[in-house]
Amino acid sequence: MDSQLEGLKFDSAGLIPAIVQDHKTAQVLMMAWMNREALQKTVQTGKTHFYSRSRGKLWLKGESSGHVQHVKSIRTDCDRDVLLIAVEQVGAACHDGYYSCFYREHQDGPDWKIIGQRVFDPEEVYKK
Amino acid sequence: MDSQLEGLKFDSAGLIPAIVQDHKTAQVLMMAWMNREALQKTVQTGKTHFYSRSRGKLWLKGESSGHVQHVKSIRTDCDRDVLLIAVEQVGAACHDGYYSCFYREHQDGPDWKIIGQRVFDPEEVYKK
Repeated sequence: MDSQLEGLKFDSAGLIPAIVQDHKTAQVLMMAWMNREALQKTVQTGKTHFYSRSRGKLWLKGESSGHVQHVKSIRTDCDRDVLLIAVEQVGAACHDGYYSCFYREHQDGPDWKIIGQRVFDPEEVYKK
Repeated sequence: MDSQLEGLKFDSAGLIPAIVQDHKTAQVLMMAWMNREALQKTVQTGKTHFYSRSRGKLWLKGESSGHVQHVKSIRTDCDRDVLLIAVEQVGAACHDGYYSCFYREHQDGPDWKIIGQRVFDPEEVYKK
């Protein structure tokens, strides 16, 4: 990694949160975690890679669905411990079929309000 | 907290990441952490509160600078383990004087490119 990326602050598990947004509309699509290898692969390939804490391994966003994210810019914050990545999203970001993972909004009442429109049917995209 | 917020997934330290964005432009301003108490105070007061991991205490965003954030909406993601909060930002979000904390962009060369414009002089705002 170059000196800029080497200067980032990864947490005690070697991870940094990466917020992903649409490069045209600024809509926030998802947040996931990167380790150094995921960030390096993201920079090298121009496609976002993350580290799955539950599966304990690196993954290419879109490896199953084809819904990859082409990186347009990588920013960091004042503390250099969070990344903000602007992308061109192929398909949709959310495995539930919504363009953004943030499709639930807090409201009065018993449950979250669904504010997104489904872009694809997860059962079709992730079928065996 | 209501049943929606009770259903959120806080991590093993009792925290959840909260991404804050401008409610009109969608510009991402900052990311910080909330515990249950911070989230509850945010909902009750309509102003963002966070939990400082370094100081080990709750803080009202803008308590020193006056740069508070008026909450317009609270969203969560598909896994319910990240918050996305749309706000009306008074002044600027970043203690370095920029409207957004994400004022550094990765580029070829030795150091990050500063892409933000300073909105205020930190020495003036945070002077004793």
